[in-house]
Amino acid sequence: MSPAPASTASSNGANGTDVSYVDVAIIGAGPAGCMAADVLSRFTDRGLSVRVFDKRSAKLDNGQADGLNSRTLEIFESLGFIESVEKEGSRMSEINFWNPCPDTGRLVRTAKIPDTIPGLSRFQQTILHQGRVEAHLLQDAATHSKGAILPERSMLPESLEIDESVVDDVDAYPITLTIRHLSDEESNPSGYKGDENGTRSGLFRSSLLSAAEEEALYKKQQEQRVETVKAKYVIGCDGAHSWTRRQLGVNMIGDQTNFVWGVLDMKPLTNFPDIRMRCAIHSANAGSVMVIPQERDLVRLYIQLPIQVVPGERVDKSKVTPEFILETARRVLHPYTLDTDHIDWFTGYHIGQRLTESFGKHNRVFLAGDACHTHSPKAGQGMNTSMQDTWNLCWKLGAVITGVAKRELLQTYSDERQVVAKTLIDFDTKFSKLFSGKPASADDVDDGVDLKEFKDVFATGNLFAAGMSINYTDSIVVGKDGSKGAVRSRPELASKLAVGERFFSAQVVNHASATADQLTTRIPYTGAFRILVFPGDVAKPQLMQRLEKFAAYLDSPESVVSKYTPSNLPRWSIIDPVTIHAAERTSLELYDFPQPSIFHPHNYKRLYVDGPSHHRGDGKAYEAYGISKEEGAVVVVRPDQYIGLITGLEDTDTLDAYFAQFMLPAKDGGFPGSKVPKVLPPDWSKVAKQEIAKTLAVEEVNAI
Amino acid sequence: MSPAPASTASSNGANGTDVSYVDVAIIGAGPAGCMAADVLSRFTDRGLSVRVFDKRSAKLDNGQADGLNSRTLEIFESLGFIESVEKEGSRMSEINFWNPCPDTGRLVRTAKIPDTIPGLSRFQQTILHQGRVEAHLLQDAATHSKGAILPERSMLPESLEIDESVVDDVDAYPITLTIRHLSDEESNPSGYKGDENGTRSGLFRSSLLSAAEEEALYKKQQEQRVETVKAKYVIGCDGAHSWTRRQLGVNMIGDQTNFVWGVLDMKPLTNFPDIRMRCAIHSANAGSVMVIPQERDLVRLYIQLPIQVVPGERVDKSKVTPEFILETARRVLHPYTLDTDHIDWFTGYHIGQRLTESFGKHNRVFLAGDACHTHSPKAGQGMNTSMQDTWNLCWKLGAVITGVAKRELLQTYSDERQVVAKTLIDFDTKFSKLFSGKPASADDVDDGVDLKEFKDVFATGNLFAAGMSINYTDSIVVGKDGSKGAVRSRPELASKLAVGERFFSAQVVNHASATADQLTTRIPYTGAFRILVFPGDVAKPQLMQRLEKFAAYLDSPESVVSKYTPSNLPRWSIIDPVTIHAAERTSLELYDFPQPSIFHPHNYKRLYVDGPSHHRGDGKAYEAYGISKEEGAVVVVRPDQYIGLITGLEDTDTLDAYFAQFMLPAKDGGFPGSKVPKVLPPDWSKVAKQEIAKTLAVEEVNAI
Repeated sequence: MSPAPASTASSNGANGTDVSYVDVAIIGAGPAGCMAADVLSRFTDRGLSVRVFDKRSAKLDNGQADGLNSRTLEIFESLGFIESVEKEGSRMSEINFWNPCPDTGRLVRTAKIPDTIPGLSRFQQTILHQGRVEAHLLQDAATHSKGAILPERSMLPESLEIDESVVDDVDAYPITLTIRHLSDEESNPSGYKGDENGTRSGLFRSSLLSAAEEEALYKKQQEQRVETVKAKYVIGCDGAHSWTRRQLGVNMIGDQTNFVWGVLDMKPLTNFPDIRMRCAIHSANAGSVMVIPQERDLVRLYIQLPIQVVPGERVDKSKVTPEFILETARRVLHPYTLDTDHIDWFTGYHIGQRLTESFGKHNRVFLAGDACHTHSPKAGQGMNTSMQDTWNLCWKLGAVITGVAKRELLQTYSDERQVVAKTLIDFDTKFSKLFSGKPASADDVDDGVDLKEFKDVFATGNLFAAGMSINYTDSIVVGKDGSKGAVRSRPELASKLAVGERFFSAQVVNHASATADQLTTRIPYTGAFRILVFPGDVAKPQLMQRLEKFAAYLDSPESVVSKYTPSNLPRWSIIDPVTIHAAERTSLELYDFPQPSIFHPHNYKRLYVDGPSHHRGDGKAYEAYGISKEEGAVVVVRPDQYIGLITGLEDTDTLDAYFAQFMLPAKDGGFPGSKVPKVLPPDWSKVAKQEIAKTLAVEEVNAI
Repeated sequence: MSPAPASTASSNGANGTDVSYVDVAIIGAGPAGCMAADVLSRFTDRGLSVRVFDKRSAKLDNGQADGLNSRTLEIFESLGFIESVEKEGSRMSEINFWNPCPDTGRLVRTAKIPDTIPGLSRFQQTILHQGRVEAHLLQDAATHSKGAILPERSMLPESLEIDESVVDDVDAYPITLTIRHLSDEESNPSGYKGDENGTRSGLFRSSLLSAAEEEALYKKQQEQRVETVKAKYVIGCDGAHSWTRRQLGVNMIGDQTNFVWGVLDMKPLTNFPDIRMRCAIHSANAGSVMVIPQERDLVRLYIQLPIQVVPGERVDKSKVTPEFILETARRVLHPYTLDTDHIDWFTGYHIGQRLTESFGKHNRVFLAGDACHTHSPKAGQGMNTSMQDTWNLCWKLGAVITGVAKRELLQTYSDERQVVAKTLIDFDTKFSKLFSGKPASADDVDDGVDLKEFKDVFATGNLFAAGMSINYTDSIVVGKDGSKGAVRSRPELASKLAVGERFFSAQVVNHASATADQLTTRIPYTGAFRILVFPGDVAKPQLMQRLEKFAAYLDSPESVVSKYTPSNLPRWSIIDPVTIHAAERTSLELYDFPQPSIFHPHNYKRLYVDGPSHHRGDGKAYEAYGISKEEGAVVVVRPDQYIGLITGLEDTDTLDAYFAQFMLPAKDGGFPGSKVPKVLPPDWSKVAKQEIAKTLAVEEVNAI
């Protein structure tokens, strides 16, 4: 972005290595890194450059994380590829709890609850393994960047230096990375290959490995090219043993437990009836199993292993074999049988909860995903939280690098996500302790797990686990009650929405095409803020006048749209007004709406109706959002779908104040509405009376 | 499939050319040919071989047909790629009628109707251009055939001979084709290239060309390789000027009209308010325009051109330019303005309705699509009917070639589709006459078009146009009232379904996973017949006993499943029983159902419940189908989703009789249920009483 060294240019460094420049270097192509690449890909047509480095030679194609919660699926909808994920994945509907019967000792089903709380989201928790998730994100990033963003594999970072003297200079490249190009052999751990039965091990990247052991896997065997990369920003998405985090000298704080678990992805042959349900199974004395039905007829089992952990020592990995894990599962499920004709993947892990001291340094190097928080995998939160970290970070980074927003915006990443990470760690500590303990016996109530409590924690944890409990606090991009210097919302205008929470979808009807769709489908992620204008029933003249007044503000050179949008971009690319009115659709024509901020000439995608549709019923969006059709509301939705502000159509000062906190006026003076040529009505004076049969006199619709 | 010459083998022919063998040769990779390839791709893993020849060097990437009706979209769901088509396409919701006002002469909107009749299908008419449709079908065919089916382009057929002496020998290759390999240059008409503005012409393949003119485009310039292909079956999908049809000496019967139309795909700049609606616009004196909103913000206009047609002579193509078409559209829309910054594609056509004398020869060579029926494109029927032709033909062809069905089954292709083609031609004759006429004037009522009648034809034609009016008559695969020797159904058992019509979807819940889905999503096209077993409320013992009796029949060596399924295939690959019961889901376990025909061990995809779901409400499938929860029903759904038979659980004789008409018993003696190992219940005797706290005494669910 800076006029200085072209981001694609390279030259020779002092020590003879190549030197190149890039806006953002992403270390690690796991879920957090792939999400970062995809979110940033929407800025490449404005000149932002991205490189993604991964030390491994190949992407995963089985195993690892597999749970996608409702919030992640909403994000995939916003990115535009939810259909493929839903098609491929295994949607989970119900959780069944199995426990020993105190009278007979038999394993019995003691409770059923829905897997995702009904009504929480349009999307229910879905299982799709990490490799496919990464592939979708990378494919989408490649499409949106026209092939510019592709992961560079077998690339091992070796050093990271920050020139602290220029970290506040927006045009500077304060970070110097050196990256070693590995050979395929050096970067392809044997775990990828699988054994003679096609079973692959995930142990080589599990929490049973120390950082040193993992690092040793990629030790260079021969001299390879070393590249020097100067970056404006670096995102460390390089996992629990994060190399980036260690370069920053940032520690992980937390404890290991005494619990060791194994994981098997397999095609089961069993007489256990709930093998296609998510199940939490506690045996009387043989430990616990969690069942996760996967895609491709696979089932994942999480199995508590009878392995003695010596405090302070590492677990002996050699004990963690597929046969041992399967045998342990059989003991828990006894007398239900468990056989298999194919084990796809296995791993083991030692439960611990650790949280990073810091999410980065100087708002130039950021940490995300497992590099910041590690915990047990059973609640299905790791991949989700990791992707949601960079979903939060990267629209901010894109806005700052393209000169649209102030650098202060970047501080909200750490402020917002640290709270989420802490909540996750606390939830997982409680959840995995309950899961790993054995049921309380009559003699030993204190030590055991009360299975009623377990089910209750599970049920209440579901809101959190779905990713729906996030409510970002007041900040320069979240204006609730005006605390911490933030702007004050008028939440009563949209009583069922909450500032700081994600904007949820309702069905609306396109005014120009009469086609019904979910509103979130029609305002996908583009990097822009949305100003959702709810002007109410504008068939009433006073409400249309109110909308016209608001439109006149938006058109004026001083409005947030005009001021912050450079005139060489489409007028909706930075702050995008989208109108949802509540008049009867056929009572108004497109051209009854003010141009260009409400009905943008020749653009039919920014004006919607809350009302009945021909084929999909009535979305009742105003009702869903708690917005009055008389009073209306203006809802500012951040690029990541979180609500930044709720205010009224008269409160343009509040809008000004909100955006002024973090936006930078366009250097070219902005894009006032007057620069957009209006579409004029037809010239009826040119139509002469024509001779037509009276028999054809059909009334014009809406002409009555 | 025959043990004789391996289908992939080649040898030298008498005249030194290559000779190879194939089960099915498809001539033409348009919508009909691509659908044929995709439908046949499900048989390639049973050894069926397919080759697709196209004389053109490249697939289309704009223009041509663009309308997908509800029925086609249902077929795409059955094939498994509806999500991508819905994502890419432009869904149409409303048709607006614009007509001259008799008082003022102004163009006014006189009526609105929904584009697809609400409630007719889950899918509404969607616009996606032919090239993308072909791409989806070919991609799917390649996936299912593991890359074996790929179109061979620049391949011009030169001769077709049928050895009539062996047409009844199922193992013979009676057809000899010679195919010339063209160079790229020879097979890439200039129309593909586009002019300096990026506008491509479709004239080189329009109905304005004679067969000779079209053929001349592919005339060989130099000597190329000529290949001899011996085929069991040939499908001519080679369009209105079908080379295949001419080899058979089959004629097209019908007339040309005096109407010439132009087509423009463009990005419009206009003040006409309904440019994103489908519109039928009649001007007083300047002709008609039809507006079709397309994907990628394009709009298609069909425009009646003021070109004088001399009866018996061909239209002068040189008049049909984008400028002339646009100028004509402007006159119709006047005083609404119409400009554009990009014309993507244009063509012209001379309206005629013609129908083939015959759909093929000896049930060895088949004609499909435009090779059988040509008509005007405005009703959006060409691409749909063409694909639905081969959708009908190719599952039959697959069943016959793989030895599952008798050759007599093939005769039903022509019997079923000829009726559809005739209806199409009659509909289009009426529809296009109304569309092309000018409004009736007071002086000239007889000659003009009554615009009220026009709208009514449009509205009633919608059922036909959606592809939903098809009701195949009694035959060996459709058993209605026993006429024509067909089997007799008991239609009253499913009073809202109709034998001969397509089976429509209702939501059901998977018994094993509690996940709700559309039933048609869960019984995708595989080439198998479905026996949908609706046993009613099987929580009632007498109804469960009835199901058990039916299951005992299915398990027995004499049942249609056992008899017609070779034992080396999965037991559901030929005739697939899928059960939808109406008991409360949690009142029964999987293992309460009879194995293996109802609950197939370790297969959780063949047992569903009609009842409430956690996240998607209650599908009320029995109610939707008009099936009693006391009486139940058995519905036989053909591989193409049409209903072949409705009968009762006791009527196993009817089932036997139905399938005996067209199926061939498996040569290896079949696949009785006794060959499937059952899953046995757990051995509870092995569980000792275990010490567990009384505080944990939680009631087992469903144990009350």
